[in-house]
Amino acid sequence: MQFSDKIAPLKPSAIREIFKVLGDPSIISLAGGNPAPETFPVKEFQTLSAKLFEENGKNALQYGLTEGYLPLRKKITERLKEKLGIGRDFDETIVVTGGQQGVDLTCKILCNEGDVVLCEDPSFIGALNAFRSYNTRLVGIPVDDCGMQIDKLEQALKKEKKAKLIYTIPTFQNPTGVCMSLERRKALYALAKKYGVIIIEDNPYGELRFHGEEIPTIKSMDEDGIVVYCGSFSKILSPGMRIGFLCAQKEIVSKIIVAKQVNDVHTNLFFQMLTDAYMETYDLDGHIREIRELYRKKCAAMQAAAKQYLPANVSVTSPEGGIFLWCRMPETVDSQKFANRLLRRNVAVVPGMAFSPDDAPSNGMRLNYSMPTEEQIDRAIQQIGEELREILF
Amino acid sequence: MQFSDKIAPLKPSAIREIFKVLGDPSIISLAGGNPAPETFPVKEFQTLSAKLFEENGKNALQYGLTEGYLPLRKKITERLKEKLGIGRDFDETIVVTGGQQGVDLTCKILCNEGDVVLCEDPSFIGALNAFRSYNTRLVGIPVDDCGMQIDKLEQALKKEKKAKLIYTIPTFQNPTGVCMSLERRKALYALAKKYGVIIIEDNPYGELRFHGEEIPTIKSMDEDGIVVYCGSFSKILSPGMRIGFLCAQKEIVSKIIVAKQVNDVHTNLFFQMLTDAYMETYDLDGHIREIRELYRKKCAAMQAAAKQYLPANVSVTSPEGGIFLWCRMPETVDSQKFANRLLRRNVAVVPGMAFSPDDAPSNGMRLNYSMPTEEQIDRAIQQIGEELREILF
Repeated sequence: MQFSDKIAPLKPSAIREIFKVLGDPSIISLAGGNPAPETFPVKEFQTLSAKLFEENGKNALQYGLTEGYLPLRKKITERLKEKLGIGRDFDETIVVTGGQQGVDLTCKILCNEGDVVLCEDPSFIGALNAFRSYNTRLVGIPVDDCGMQIDKLEQALKKEKKAKLIYTIPTFQNPTGVCMSLERRKALYALAKKYGVIIIEDNPYGELRFHGEEIPTIKSMDEDGIVVYCGSFSKILSPGMRIGFLCAQKEIVSKIIVAKQVNDVHTNLFFQMLTDAYMETYDLDGHIREIRELYRKKCAAMQAAAKQYLPANVSVTSPEGGIFLWCRMPETVDSQKFANRLLRRNVAVVPGMAFSPDDAPSNGMRLNYSMPTEEQIDRAIQQIGEELREILF
Repeated sequence: MQFSDKIAPLKPSAIREIFKVLGDPSIISLAGGNPAPETFPVKEFQTLSAKLFEENGKNALQYGLTEGYLPLRKKITERLKEKLGIGRDFDETIVVTGGQQGVDLTCKILCNEGDVVLCEDPSFIGALNAFRSYNTRLVGIPVDDCGMQIDKLEQALKKEKKAKLIYTIPTFQNPTGVCMSLERRKALYALAKKYGVIIIEDNPYGELRFHGEEIPTIKSMDEDGIVVYCGSFSKILSPGMRIGFLCAQKEIVSKIIVAKQVNDVHTNLFFQMLTDAYMETYDLDGHIREIRELYRKKCAAMQAAAKQYLPANVSVTSPEGGIFLWCRMPETVDSQKFANRLLRRNVAVVPGMAFSPDDAPSNGMRLNYSMPTEEQIDRAIQQIGEELREILF
């Protein structure tokens, strides 16, 4: 079969392949990006669903507008303004089918084949593959403990004449868990403006801060309409319902609506109405506080276990929120091989290479702490420590 | 803003613009493609939802697999086999976010920019715009009362060296309502095979036959793995839930899964499980029989009104199923202007030009009978008749 040039080289993601072995309940997975299921508002959704079917069932099952259910859009718009200082007169907020669709369609409407997308290295594989699926070229900018390295970004912008997008997850980055400093956010914005490049700020974890001070979003600085902000209810209500949102200047949003219309017409309307009713009826902020507290404990458990079990030449990041941390092993370690060896110890992780914009080998690996229990975290890190000692010493 | 070459020329669809005036309840709309809301299984979904939240809520709200919820995929696979003779050893069936996503992603994985998509003229605007959004070139093949004209298709295949896809809605076509004859289906399949072109068979209305004999799907003839079949629950259960499916040979499906993963990760899981539970618990075939009976009456009402009110030089098609019929006016009538004049009479229709692969003016218009009541159908066709007499005589 002759596939399109843009799709032919794309392979199923490494995460996806690792997911396949996870049917086995004896395996402890630090590999996924799943929120803890105990955080899902099952009872509240059950109550609201009964009411929604009762009072408005026919409308909830009919076709809806591509840009989303208006009362929900209004609530998201207000919330973005209030919590994050996001949204100017020229901006508009729409509902998308998960934050992923926002990233995918933003690339589609802006990038020609051969255009360059600058992204963090390492970065979220789902976004990287979305960019690849439009035949763009990825240029990775190294990440340190303060996020994307801005001097390297400027070097790349000077060099790459076809740079069109900067993709960043500034807050509790996937996969590293680090937060970009305010100074760097400002510098990144200034560079994007100077070089005429659009920023995608992907912020699925932004509300999950459990330590330290809030740092303003890049979109809150967006006086020029050059930031496309992608958000999601996946990590604060439920990922399975696939409800995300996107805020950008109207001209961009109007093209994204056209692209969304031919992509899936609109997002599941019943769950848009359910999310709206949840925000109307319950205390979303209180709910998020509970999630933060849960993840704070789980992250602390993982860091304590890392301190206890990992060799001194292995470091882990110290996330102030989110659901991941990043483990850096000595340079001699090939994380891909290491992840395969760990599977024999019934522990699944995602090796760093999966997050590399240029498929480079990596001595890092991503560890998820939102899904496993504290006890599983302890056991898994102990296994990682033992395996590391076996191969290193 | 510099948009991508593929998206820059795309405009919001004419249907979408017409939808905007439909907030006004004094307007009778024959413009949409909405199923009758009284056909939605609201009570059944309500019962099943309560049970699903109770028994399996956490799983239903968690991330799911990109290819869809396995029990639902199995049920769809069985149903396609049993009802439509679809599915060979080399085929695989996955869930997509509405039939629209199946069409969109099939084009994405197969077509390079500049490749040619052959389609019926007129055809479904949502699909045409999806193809346009990948910078393919559309070549329209005229439709008569037996569907796509096969001699014209062969001429086009001979001429168009970059032909990659044939897009067809053979059964109760959108917008004309006509059914492609068995002879032409066989000929179309043979031509696609001869010229090495993939067929997308889009079949959202196929189960809605209320007159005449079933005609085999093109996919049922697919011994060579060259047909991508797109189906949907939108017209038999609910469009708002956005649950469709796609059946094609495994090599194609594996690429569509990769493209879907970067597009929306997966389709709303709760409604996949709900659809599965509906098929398990209730009589979907019985439900569809009720829908057919309703649409049979509504279609008959529209044809009776057409006979009563429309001038003799205006014809309408005689659909044996589906939700649309096509009205052909004398060649002097510009349907775009006519549709605007009709709006002043509080009747909305979609002018033929919206369905033209090359934006050609048209003397046709699409009339929907699934959504309006029989009384509204009568009033609307009377208004169309009066307006026609006013401009023609």
